[in-house]
Amino acid sequence: MYIVGVDLGGTEIKVGLVDREKGIVRKVSRATEVDKGPDKIVENIALAIKEVAGDDDFEYVGIGSPGSIDRKKGIVRFSPNFPDWRDFHLTEKVSELIDKEIIVENDANAFTLGEWYFGKAKGSQNFIALTLGTGIGSGVVANGTFITGNNGIGAELGHIVIVPEGPMCGCGSRGCLESVASAKFVGLHARELAPRYPESLMIKFAGDINKIESKHVFKACEENDELAKIVVNETVEVLARAIGGYVHMFNPEMIIIGGGMSKAGETLFKPLRERTKKYVMVSFRGTYRIEQSDLVENAGILGAASAAIFSKGVE
Amino acid sequence: MYIVGVDLGGTEIKVGLVDREKGIVRKVSRATEVDKGPDKIVENIALAIKEVAGDDDFEYVGIGSPGSIDRKKGIVRFSPNFPDWRDFHLTEKVSELIDKEIIVENDANAFTLGEWYFGKAKGSQNFIALTLGTGIGSGVVANGTFITGNNGIGAELGHIVIVPEGPMCGCGSRGCLESVASAKFVGLHARELAPRYPESLMIKFAGDINKIESKHVFKACEENDELAKIVVNETVEVLARAIGGYVHMFNPEMIIIGGGMSKAGETLFKPLRERTKKYVMVSFRGTYRIEQSDLVENAGILGAASAAIFSKGVE
Repeated sequence: MYIVGVDLGGTEIKVGLVDREKGIVRKVSRATEVDKGPDKIVENIALAIKEVAGDDDFEYVGIGSPGSIDRKKGIVRFSPNFPDWRDFHLTEKVSELIDKEIIVENDANAFTLGEWYFGKAKGSQNFIALTLGTGIGSGVVANGTFITGNNGIGAELGHIVIVPEGPMCGCGSRGCLESVASAKFVGLHARELAPRYPESLMIKFAGDINKIESKHVFKACEENDELAKIVVNETVEVLARAIGGYVHMFNPEMIIIGGGMSKAGETLFKPLRERTKKYVMVSFRGTYRIEQSDLVENAGILGAASAAIFSKGVE
Repeated sequence: MYIVGVDLGGTEIKVGLVDREKGIVRKVSRATEVDKGPDKIVENIALAIKEVAGDDDFEYVGIGSPGSIDRKKGIVRFSPNFPDWRDFHLTEKVSELIDKEIIVENDANAFTLGEWYFGKAKGSQNFIALTLGTGIGSGVVANGTFITGNNGIGAELGHIVIVPEGPMCGCGSRGCLESVASAKFVGLHARELAPRYPESLMIKFAGDINKIESKHVFKACEENDELAKIVVNETVEVLARAIGGYVHMFNPEMIIIGGGMSKAGETLFKPLRERTKKYVMVSFRGTYRIEQSDLVENAGILGAASAAIFSKGVE
C-alpha cells in the first residue's frame, strides 16, 4: 500500500503519494500560510494529504520538518520555519483530521533515510548523507544501522568544530562546519569580500552586491571569476577536512551530498573530491565516493515517506 | 567454559584464562623473544597458553596485536612490534601447536571490545574507546553495533586531522590526532621545548633532557611546573577538540580512555572534561562522560579474549 510523504516547508507544503518500489506516483503542493497560525498550517497539511491520496488508500503519513523533533512523541520542539511553535504536538493535531498514523522526523534524518530507500545509497550498509543548505544537516548509516546515538541526537556532523577560531555559530561553538560551509555562510562571506572585487561577476549575477547568494558564487566560479574561486576554494577546503574525518570515523562507501548548494554540481564536487584526498590516509584511498544526490526536488517527500517506513519497521 | 586471551607485546606475552562473567581467573607472562624469529614467538605463545590453562579446558583463543590485522584471514599484515612480519599467518601457526580455534584482532579493537564486555562500558549501546599510547587507537559502539565500516577499517579516530597545518604523521597526513596528542608526541614536544626551561621539573624527573617522556610531563604538571603545564594544556586542547567531534557524531554516553597516558589520571582528565565543553553544543551537555579505563594492566588480555567472544558471537 502507499505511504504519504509530507515535505513541510516554511512557504510551501509538498506532498507525495509514495510507493515503496516505484517512488512518487503523484504529488501536489500547497501554500503553508505560516502567517495564519498553527491551526491553518495543520489544515493545509490535511487538505494536501487528502488531495494527493484521492481515492487511493494509504498506510501512514511521514512528515519531514526542519528543527528539533521528538520523533517518539511526535512533537516539533522548535523549528526555524515556525518561530511560534514550541513543543507543538504536530502528529496529534494532524491525526485529528487524517485518520492514519502520523510520523514526524527531522528533515536531515529524513533526507538520509530517503537516500537509503530511494536514492544512490539504496541498500548501502555504510554511508553518510549531508545537506548543504541554509544550515548543514546530516545522517549516518554504519554497519547497516541508522546511527542516532544514546539520546537520539547523534550524527550532528554540521556542528563539529572544523576551524577552531572560526566564526560564531548559532549552536554556540566557533567554526563548526555549518558556520564556515553552509550556503548561508558562503553568501555572507562573498558579500563581505565583494567590495574589494567590484568587477566580480557574482555582483553582476546577483544584480546587487547585497543580494549575492551562494548560487551566484558558484555560477561566477564556473566563469573563472577570481573572487568566486577564492570563496569556493575556502568552502571546499573546510568541507574536505570534514569529510576526511567522516571517512576515518565510519569507513563509508559513499558520502551523498544534497541541499541547495549541491546544485552547483561539478563546480563543487570536482575540487571537493580532489581536496578530500589530502585529509584521508592511504589505507582509505579508493574506499569511498563523494556523490551528488539525485533525488533533487523529490528529496523532501521521499525522505518524509522513508522516515515513516523506517519508524514502522524498526521502532 | 573459559577463553584464553593473549596480549602480544613486543617484549612480553601476557596470557590470561578468562571467564565471561568473572574476568581473568589466572594469568602468566613470558618473554616474546622477538630476536629469535617468528617460529620462536609462536612457540612462546603456545607455551604460555598451555601454562595458563593447566588442566582446565578452554573454548578458543583470542590474540590482540598492534598493527594492521586481517581478522577474517587470521593474518598480521604488518605490526610495529614485529618488523619482519609481512602477511604473517599467525592464527594458522599457533593452531599447529594449540588445537583450538585462534582469533587475532587489532589491539585497539580488542581494547574497545574488552571495555564493552568487562570494563566501564559493560552493556553500553553507545560509547567510544580511545587508547593514548605511542599511537592512538580507537573503537566505536553506536546503537549497539561495533562500528567497523564498509571495509572493516573504520573508527580510525587517531588519524582524523585536528590541526590542519600540524606535524607530519606516519599515516601521511599533517596534524591528525595521533601526531599531536599521542604519548610519543607529548614526549617529543616536551624535549623540544625543555632547553628553554632549564629549571623544569620534567628534566629532573627524567634524569636527562633527552629522556623526557609523557609520564615525566604529567608528573611535573602535578607539581605545577610551568613547561609541563604548557605541554599538558596543548595536549588537552587537541584531545578536547577531537572528543567534541565524536560527541556530535555518535552521541555516546561515554568516552573511555586507556593506554599509557591515561595513567596520568585527573591531571589529564579534569582539564579534559572542562575543555571539551567548549567544543560541544548545548544540546549535548550532560549527555556524555569522559572516563579513565579501569582495566589497566588487564586491558590487553581481556580485550583479546573479548575479541574472540565477539568474533564467535557475531561472525
